[in-house]
Amino acid sequence: MVNVYEIIGLLAAFITTASFLPQVIKTYKTKDTSGLSLTMYITFFIGIVLWLIYGIHLNSLPMILANFITAILSLFLIIMKLKHK
Amino acid sequence: MVNVYEIIGLLAAFITTASFLPQVIKTYKTKDTSGLSLTMYITFFIGIVLWLIYGIHLNSLPMILANFITAILSLFLIIMKLKHK
Repeated sequence: MVNVYEIIGLLAAFITTASFLPQVIKTYKTKDTSGLSLTMYITFFIGIVLWLIYGIHLNSLPMILANFITAILSLFLIIMKLKHK
Repeated sequence: MVNVYEIIGLLAAFITTASFLPQVIKTYKTKDTSGLSLTMYITFFIGIVLWLIYGIHLNSLPMILANFITAILSLFLIIMKLKHK
């Protein structure tokens, strides 16, 4: 059953994932990765994968959705950085 | 009882919160907020507050800790942006 807290969680997932998109779009368009820190994004990626594992354990749809998408987006930025550095 | 998933969650909380710190330290030191998007940080802050509410509902210590600290840090960046723009 979807309750009010699930909706709050899904809204949180949508907002924080969306706030990550401008960086991804900018990097995709310009291929300019000079301002990106590889160490930071690798660290962040590991953190997101751990949140994903934790979210699967909690059986939380908002956490699984948000962290799965954010993991893919941050992995994309890491690949762009490695390819265009 | 602290199980392995709580440890994974706490590690996730520590890593993703820590990955936010360099921006906060840089902004605190330089007072240079020209590269920060006010709209993005306000949106992000709202998302984090929603995650915090959701984390309190799930009674998840890692989510409460991570989102409480990140909310304070992003609020700090918002205040710096408003003060030094």
